[in-house]
Amino acid sequence: MSLVSRSSINAAMDIIQPLIHKTPVMSSRSLNQLFGCELYFKCEHLQRTGSFKFRGASHAVQTLPAETQAVATHSSGNHGAALAKAAADRDIRATIVVPENANTNKVAAIRHYGGEVVFCHNSIEAREAMLETVVKRDGAEFVPPYDDLRVIAGQGTIALELMEQVPDLEAIIAPVGGGGMLAGISTCYGEESSPESCKVFGAEPELADDARRSFKSGSRVTSQTTTTIADGLRTTLGAHNFELIQAHVADILCVTEAEIVDSMALIWTRLKQVAEPSAAVTLAVIKRYQSRFAGKRVGLILSGGNIDPAQLPF
Amino acid sequence: MSLVSRSSINAAMDIIQPLIHKTPVMSSRSLNQLFGCELYFKCEHLQRTGSFKFRGASHAVQTLPAETQAVATHSSGNHGAALAKAAADRDIRATIVVPENANTNKVAAIRHYGGEVVFCHNSIEAREAMLETVVKRDGAEFVPPYDDLRVIAGQGTIALELMEQVPDLEAIIAPVGGGGMLAGISTCYGEESSPESCKVFGAEPELADDARRSFKSGSRVTSQTTTTIADGLRTTLGAHNFELIQAHVADILCVTEAEIVDSMALIWTRLKQVAEPSAAVTLAVIKRYQSRFAGKRVGLILSGGNIDPAQLPF
Repeated sequence: MSLVSRSSINAAMDIIQPLIHKTPVMSSRSLNQLFGCELYFKCEHLQRTGSFKFRGASHAVQTLPAETQAVATHSSGNHGAALAKAAADRDIRATIVVPENANTNKVAAIRHYGGEVVFCHNSIEAREAMLETVVKRDGAEFVPPYDDLRVIAGQGTIALELMEQVPDLEAIIAPVGGGGMLAGISTCYGEESSPESCKVFGAEPELADDARRSFKSGSRVTSQTTTTIADGLRTTLGAHNFELIQAHVADILCVTEAEIVDSMALIWTRLKQVAEPSAAVTLAVIKRYQSRFAGKRVGLILSGGNIDPAQLPF
Repeated sequence: MSLVSRSSINAAMDIIQPLIHKTPVMSSRSLNQLFGCELYFKCEHLQRTGSFKFRGASHAVQTLPAETQAVATHSSGNHGAALAKAAADRDIRATIVVPENANTNKVAAIRHYGGEVVFCHNSIEAREAMLETVVKRDGAEFVPPYDDLRVIAGQGTIALELMEQVPDLEAIIAPVGGGGMLAGISTCYGEESSPESCKVFGAEPELADDARRSFKSGSRVTSQTTTTIADGLRTTLGAHNFELIQAHVADILCVTEAEIVDSMALIWTRLKQVAEPSAAVTLAVIKRYQSRFAGKRVGLILSGGNIDPAQLPF
């Protein structure tokens, strides 16, 4: 019995469909020409709260027992805002534990969606202690950012939409941080019966290559210190995530910081879409491993678009 | 007999429909909440060549006599790239006269779409002399950027799509530079028979308010020197354009540079769309004249998305 299956992803979709946006797929003739393949960008930056994280957070919140009054998590990024909004949709309380050095824009987003922000010192111990305090204070249910079967199944719903929108993809490239999205999508595609079925790749910054190292060695790397610009991908792989990724992912491909920034500029100027650095790793993989994807129909997951205009890398 | 009519815009649509993108309309709950109205963004930044200019250029090029071998224009912006692409679609030559201090990105875009770039000194006299030289050299047909009935009818096709996509708009706000788009759209809506019909407004930077001054005084301002960040709106109103705008536009509303930059940031962070400053004047009008549009269903034309990531105003 697997952790998450195509049918649990289908079940997640039934639950969250009224709440999520079915995000569009975009393409650009000029990018196709530039890279010699057919690229299909799945626009999760247009998802509610500006990232795919809303799918998993919504699924987790909607499947909590009816008496649940509060949720909590730790996040310095998109999961915090997503959980705040998902809780607001169910009219329950959300508290997000945030390191005191967190980006003020991200904090503002959590509050914008109705979440309470609680600051903690910038260490794993401080974070866990504070989360425990909040969980006790509110009787809150902890909704982890990625190492959670409800969250993974929610993120997997991206694949269900994509299969319908572009039925004959040959490859998919998804960013991998904690691995919620990559685990969900690859599980969904991994159960396709055809031997010609679509291959799913993870895309990761070289500066945060724990997923590649875990995947290659078979042993999960559980800590890393990194300053990659792709701030959504600084976390290490979750345990459940790693198991699913090992079973279903074709390979994990890494890119440099410069390749990420260049690709982000390409997405902005050619697609006219505001993708955050963590989303741009997908196109960076196409740029770097061009021959591998030549002539192919490739889906790229634009995972989020939450940027701070005052802090751009151009 | 009017210069351009709803029926000539319909005829233009029949000609260019196979060549243009039918651009989507986007909306954002958070922007609607922020401004207390329903905003519908018509995404002409997703038009081919990244701006609405492709509509008018295509219409002009497609209606040239069969024997035409070349077109030419002067432009330091989106019209140059649009004409280059429109000419490439018909497999004829395009030469664009560009001031020698033009943005290198804009020059690269013209060449990317297959246009020849010819530089001239930065004065109206030098530009006209060089254009004449090119026209003689190639036997080229001059396609003006806005003061041209073919171009105005082409830009007016935006309105035909919008009427179908959001049938019950109460107001439309379109940027005004030379006035091709505002003339085309307002003409199209101006022929609606209902007395409740949708009002069309022009949006203009205070630093380039020739259209407002022309509209208020009834006498066309024909020169201005301006450094507004909305570089697509630095030109003055065309003669045909002014006549149509006088007949069909409800008002012209001006905004400050700071309001333009703030609104551009809002479009980027909320809609996740890369709008150029000239497109952001529309939302800036909503921000500034909020009470005037309160509770209304308003269409905003995002006219283009051609930005240089290295030169952002944030």
